[in-house]
Parts: sequence; C-alpha cells; structure tokens
Amino acid sequence: MTNTAKSALLTDLYQITMAQGFYHNDKAEVEACYYLFFRDYPFNGGYAIACGMAQIADYVQNFNFDNEDIEYLRNLNMFAEDFLQYLSELKLKVNIDCVLEGSIVFPQEPVLRVSGPILHCQLIETAILNAFNFQTLVATKASRVMSAAQCPVMEFGLRRAQGYSGGVWASRAAIVGGCSSTSDVEAGRQFNIPVAGTHAHSWVMAFENELDAFRAYAKEFANNCVLLVDTYDIEQGVKNAITVGLEMKERGQHLAGIRIDSGDLTWVSKSARKMLDEAGLTDCGIVLSNDLDEYSIKSIKNEGGSFTNLGVGTKLATAYDQAALGGVYKLAAIKKNGQWQGIMKISETSEKMTIPGFLNVRRYVDKYSKLAGDMIYDVFDGVEDVQIIVDPKDNLRRKQLAGNDYYDLLMPMFKDGKLVMDDFDTMTAQTRAKEGLATLDETQKRTLNPHTYPVGLEHSLNRKRTKLVAKIRGVKL
Amino acid sequence: MTNTAKSALLTDLYQITMAQGFYHNDKAEVEACYYLFFRDYPFNGGYAIACGMAQIADYVQNFNFDNEDIEYLRNLNMFAEDFLQYLSELKLKVNIDCVLEGSIVFPQEPVLRVSGPILHCQLIETAILNAFNFQTLVATKASRVMSAAQCPVMEFGLRRAQGYSGGVWASRAAIVGGCSSTSDVEAGRQFNIPVAGTHAHSWVMAFENELDAFRAYAKEFANNCVLLVDTYDIEQGVKNAITVGLEMKERGQHLAGIRIDSGDLTWVSKSARKMLDEAGLTDCGIVLSNDLDEYSIKSIKNEGGSFTNLGVGTKLATAYDQAALGGVYKLAAIKKNGQWQGIMKISETSEKMTIPGFLNVRRYVDKYSKLAGDMIYDVFDGVEDVQIIVDPKDNLRRKQLAGNDYYDLLMPMFKDGKLVMDDFDTMTAQTRAKEGLATLDETQKRTLNPHTYPVGLEHSLNRKRTKLVAKIRGVKL
Repeated sequence: MTNTAKSALLTDLYQITMAQGFYHNDKAEVEACYYLFFRDYPFNGGYAIACGMAQIADYVQNFNFDNEDIEYLRNLNMFAEDFLQYLSELKLKVNIDCVLEGSIVFPQEPVLRVSGPILHCQLIETAILNAFNFQTLVATKASRVMSAAQCPVMEFGLRRAQGYSGGVWASRAAIVGGCSSTSDVEAGRQFNIPVAGTHAHSWVMAFENELDAFRAYAKEFANNCVLLVDTYDIEQGVKNAITVGLEMKERGQHLAGIRIDSGDLTWVSKSARKMLDEAGLTDCGIVLSNDLDEYSIKSIKNEGGSFTNLGVGTKLATAYDQAALGGVYKLAAIKKNGQWQGIMKISETSEKMTIPGFLNVRRYVDKYSKLAGDMIYDVFDGVEDVQIIVDPKDNLRRKQLAGNDYYDLLMPMFKDGKLVMDDFDTMTAQTRAKEGLATLDETQKRTLNPHTYPVGLEHSLNRKRTKLVAKIRGVKL
Repeated sequence: MTNTAKSALLTDLYQITMAQGFYHNDKAEVEACYYLFFRDYPFNGGYAIACGMAQIADYVQNFNFDNEDIEYLRNLNMFAEDFLQYLSELKLKVNIDCVLEGSIVFPQEPVLRVSGPILHCQLIETAILNAFNFQTLVATKASRVMSAAQCPVMEFGLRRAQGYSGGVWASRAAIVGGCSSTSDVEAGRQFNIPVAGTHAHSWVMAFENELDAFRAYAKEFANNCVLLVDTYDIEQGVKNAITVGLEMKERGQHLAGIRIDSGDLTWVSKSARKMLDEAGLTDCGIVLSNDLDEYSIKSIKNEGGSFTNLGVGTKLATAYDQAALGGVYKLAAIKKNGQWQGIMKISETSEKMTIPGFLNVRRYVDKYSKLAGDMIYDVFDGVEDVQIIVDPKDNLRRKQLAGNDYYDLLMPMFKDGKLVMDDFDTMTAQTRAKEGLATLDETQKRTLNPHTYPVGLEHSLNRKRTKLVAKIRGVKL
C-alpha cells in the first residue's frame, strides 16, 4: 500500500527516453555496472546506517510496465510503438549486490552495485535512490538521537512526515537506527515493529476537567498509563497525575508515567520529578517531547533534566537539519569483448569525479574487533598484496591494512533478475546496526566533528583511476 | 498506489487507544469540532499555498478498518473485543470544510475544519495533517522558486525525496506552486500533469565519445533535444553541442537547449551563451541545474548568469531549508445541549494557545482587488457590524475591514461522511495559486522579511477568548 510501488513509472522521464535511445541505437543489451554511493557524511557525523534495501528488493521484484503504464506513455506522444512493445515485455535481468540493512557505511564507498543490460540498470535508478537515500538518512539520524538519549525513544513523526510512505518508511528506519517504538500503526503492521503511544490534549479537553480525564484514562489503560499533564497548567497537571497515581497505587496498579510536551523541558521535568518523588511515586516515569533532536536532548541531559523516555517526531522523521542524503547512482564500467572496462565521469568539481570499475568494498577488522578501514577495490583486478588504501581526495594519504581480518560488504541481492537475499527483517537490521556501532571507536561516533574513519581506493585501483583521469583530461603523467 | 492510503491504520496509535477510551466512556458520539492551522510562515516568507486536499478527500472517502486491520489490532493485545467490533463497522460521519487547493493562506487561521463524533474526528487527524503539511510546504516553496526564476522550472527531486509518496506528492505540489513540469512519470500519470526531462551523464558515457552520444540523441529526439554538456569538460561539451546544433539546423531541425549541471553556474552559463550566440545558435536555450533553490537562483540572476529554463530537485522536493510545516489539528468546540461551546488549550508558551469556537475565515478584498485582511470568526456568533480584527498575539493591534468585499474561505468538502467537493484538479489549483498571488502586494511576497498580511480574530471572538483564558487561569479581568 504505502511501501510498495508496483509501477515502473515511478522513475524520471529521462530514464525512459534514454531507454528508447539505447533501444534504437542497439545499446539496450550493453552490459553495464552502476553503483550507489553518497559523497558526504550525513549531519556532519562520522558514519551512516544503511537502510531501504527491503523496499528496493520489493520494487525490483515487482517491476513491470502494465497495460495502464504503456497506455499512459503512448499518450505522451514521445515514444515509438516498437519501443513501447519492448517495454511491455521487459523482464529485468539485473544483478544487484548490496550491504545488508543496518550496516555501518561511509561516504565514497559503493553500498549497492547493479549490473546487467544498461537499459535495465537505468530504469530502476530513481526508485532505488529514493528508497536508500531517505531511509539511510533517518536510520542514521535515529542512531544519533539514541546516542544522546540513552533511554527508550518513541518515534512519532507521521503527522509531519513527507507523504504517507515518507512517514511509514521514517518509522521503519527509526527502528533500524535504534528507536524502541513508533506511534505509526501502519508501519507496525507492515514491518512488525513495536507500536506505542500516550494520549492527546484533546482527551483532557473532552472531559469536564483534567482529573476526570486522567481517572478515565487510568481506568481504561491501567496496564500502561501515561498521563499528558500540560493541557492547562503543568503544575496542576502533575498534581492531578499524582492524585490518580496514588489512587492506582491503592488499587495495586501503577502509574507508568507522565508526559510533558511544552514549556522549558529541563525546568519542568526537574520540578515534576521532585513532586512525584515527594508523593512517593518514584517509579513513575517522565516522558518528554516537543521538537526534540540529538542536540536538544543533550542539552536537557547536561542541564540535569529528568526523563525516562522520549518521544521524537518531526526532526527525526524528516531528518530536519539535513532533509536529504545526496546518494547518487553512477555508471562505472561497461563490458567490452567480455571484459569489464572502467569508465568515469570527470567534473569541474573534483569531488564529483566517480570511481571506475566493477567494485566491491573490503572491510578490515583489527584484533580488538574494531574496524580498521574500508578498501574499495575492483573485483576483477583483485587486491595487491600490500593491501594499501589511498584517500580518494588526497593521493598521498595512505594506510596499510595487511594483517587484519576482512570481509566483503556487498552481498548478492538479485541474480539475473531473481531475488536471492531474504534478510530484510527490521528488528534484525536494528541488531546489526547496534553491533556495527560497537565496532566503531567512540571518537568516530562523536556528534560534532568526529574522527574520520579511513576509506580508500585499493592501491592498483587508485593507479588505474589516476591514469584514466589523465587520459580524459589529456594530461601527461 | 503511492498516493492512496486505504488503511485506517495510517494513524498514531494513541488515536485508536483514545478512541477505545471515548467508546467505553460513552463519549464516542460527542459532537466535536477541530480545526487545522499552522503557526508560522514557512521559509520566513509572507504566505503559504494550501495543498493536499485531494489526498485528504481520497483518504477520508476510503477510510475503513478491514479484517486485516482488525486482526492486527487484536494481536497487539491492547484492545477490547467490543471496541474492535465497533471499529470494524465504523462509517465516518464527519463534516469537513476547507480552503480550496491553491488558495493563499496564512498562519493562525483555520484552513480545514472537521466536525462530527469526536471519535471519528480524532481517528483521521494524523493522515490529514500529513497530507496538508507536506504538500502545502512544497507548493509554497515552489512558488518562491518560481518568483526567483521567472522562467519555466522543471521539478526533478524524486530520487532524493522522502519516500515514494513523498516524491510523487512533491511533484504534484510543485506544479500547484507554479512549476511547469516534473520528471516524475508516476506523478504525471496519477495527476495528469506535464512531464519532462533531458538525459543523464550515463548516456554520454555509454557511447565511444561525447559527439557520438549527442548525435545519437539528436537523431532520436529531434523534436525536443536538450544536450547535457558537462560529462567530461564543459567547454568541449558546449563545442560538441554546437556542432550537433549546426548539423540539426542544416536538416531544418532545432537544438532546443543545452543543460549544465556542475561548475559555477553563473560563469559557465555566461560563456556558454556567448559560444552559442557566436555560432548562430541564439535560439538554443540553456537549462541550469545542481542544487538550486530560490536563493541560488536569485544570485545567478543578479550576477548575469544566462538561462532559459531551470531544473530544481532536492531542495524543492524535500523543502530542504525547512523540511516540515508545523500544522496542527486542535479541538476547538464541543456541542453541549445542542449548542457549540468553544474550548481551548492553554500552554506555557502563549503562542501555542488555540482559538475556541466553530470557526470560519472571512477574507476581505479591497477596491483594487488586493487582499485587505482575513478575519477568523465564530460561525454561530457571527460578525459584529464594526468588522474589526484583533491580532491574536497583540490584543491592542486592530484593523477595521468594513467597506471591503469579502467571502468565506472554508468550503464544504464532506457532509455527514459524504464527499461533496469535486475541485481537486492539479492544474486548476495551479491557476488558483497564480491568481491568488496576484492579489497580494509585492511587499507581502518578498522572499526575506516580507510585509506581514493582517490576520486577526473577529472583535467578539477575541473578547470571548480573552474571557476563557482568564477563567482557565483564574485571573480576574
């Protein structure tokens, strides 16, 4: 419903016009290799958490142009009949290899590789980028929020999210990044993730007075009663919650918590804590919400604000301070006479130059089980014995990785159009992210100005790339 | 597919738990009135363009809990059987009144009003907010981009958008805000809006050299040939485009344009224009793209950059500099003994206080057809003869609007659960927005620090609200 896109039309028009161009120029079956990567750390942090593969698998598996799609394209009067016929019979024959969801990933390195007929690879670019870019962004944001919070966090951004699937995917990605639950029931149903919630101000306003409203809520939801105390006056609200909490205590029940959604959260939460404790409700939790993100949470914590749970909405579900991850999908190799040949785009902006070849990423792990570095290498050229990586932005900055254990990041997802990966469970991805974060040094996870993790080109790949740039630019080495 | 949400589960869990609370407390049928409004101007601008009503209509019309939904809720072990039975038979009986899509709207004023059984009103809150908040944000952003560009703008943000429907809705909202076309084919199909596109760098890389690639493209798409010139070297790219443009000219065809996607766009576009003109291709357009928004477009224009069309992606489709509109949906009145009674939420933060009553907005238009002011009034109390509005944030700032023409903004969308509005066409909304913008003064449309448009409470409503605040706070007037 909100997470599947059966339609092959969920793409940019130029993918389809180029497809016709390839088809009419006998290039439809040219074997090409693309990879997906992003250029910069999201949120100026030190890592990202890969997410969105489940939706990519779903999209590619269901990809086809149905009659309605073809009819729509025909009516645009841009396409030839022979090409429309071709599209209507198209079955994707792509190979896709990618990192597993929840993996820690870094700028520059391929996180997903698509190879197969160039026309096929191109048609699926847009939807793949959409799914990866957004969910990776939110999963990463969520892990930053969790690192600041150090307590259970509920995601509840659906009402401010960007579209229905923007909301549902944000909820999923937030869980992958470490949130404990979401308010989004549809996401709960689709992905089998924990849902939670309290009540709204309107609940209180629908009763004659706040105390009546609290009592009715406690009666209805005695097992998980959290009372929102700031509809009229917070101090009175806390007093009313205490009254109900003590009544529950007498009945052998337990007031799980109060929620505060306005005012200065540090100030208010400290005085609420004091009032609850003095009334003997020391085990009553405090849930804070109201435009929180990792920065405001840190500040409340540093100032001694008191909370046991948090609700985070808008700023997480829309990744408010950086609303897009600039992931791109670039052509990196073409098969000629049975051999993959690396190609690249040069740009006015040096950072926008791509990495040529049929690539994978080798991740090295040191003897303390911490990550030592990621090596981008050409699968068909292999890795030189010296096992050196070269910084793609600084040719003379190098690191030797020999002696460490390693494994490859890209795993088969589709083979010749057939789905071969089945590892798309959201909670498993959450565990993977948690375990992955434990393999980073604390300095690499710092919220601001973190220590940079080493990612580089394998030594021989770097040499090959340098030669290619020189050739394209007509520079003698 | 990507724009419909059949499921009633697309909501926050607390809406459903509160619903059970209302049901078990004999409050399910209490008649309530909610309204949707936002508190601040998006992008620090001077107006917003309302959008998303088509999706709200769709959602409300298709609202129901099907067997799968009920089964999911049952398995959560949070809900009582009698309540689940009630939900499974629920038919919405709400009345919804709202502004037409494309209308110019302002902070504080109701843009959508929902009345009916409180349980019904509450269940649909989340999805309504989601649809309105995001599309209004993007439509407003698009109108700012158009105001800076003063030329046709293509929206092409799907690959960076927040989810599939985030992308498809962004494309729709961008058109409402004034964009001429979108690259998003699925949005084109769903909403019957113009689609457009050029080609990607990979097209050039798939050929032996750039000139071959350009010739092949010109042959395939002679009717609308725009060549991307920055795959390897922009100057050489422009030269190659000129070669192809002159060849097309000889064949009686026309090179529609070149596209530049990197480098300093002012510098590069000026020299490209010079080269094209000197080659006699004065009617060849220049399309610029690369992380554009209203600010960078203004700067390119001010510096004498040369362009005939623009492509705007990420920063428009995600409303990058303000990724969420903080629209809220607040309970404002409850019917008691057949009479609507205004109620309100007080807050630590004075700006968060709501406006009580069964409200509509009267828009006044002066004799020059410019907007004179918007009056928020209670439908059942009517408007005092003096026709004065009072600034909700400054009780002594007032404006008299008598003598102007006026009309009411909120129009019937649903009556007793039945859809009665049929005005959801995207291109019509675009026209409405354009006409609406013409009724604002230029100073009110300024990108930065615009002149504030007067929106206020009708005189008697202001008095009533002041009394209610005093009563809740126990203050003597």
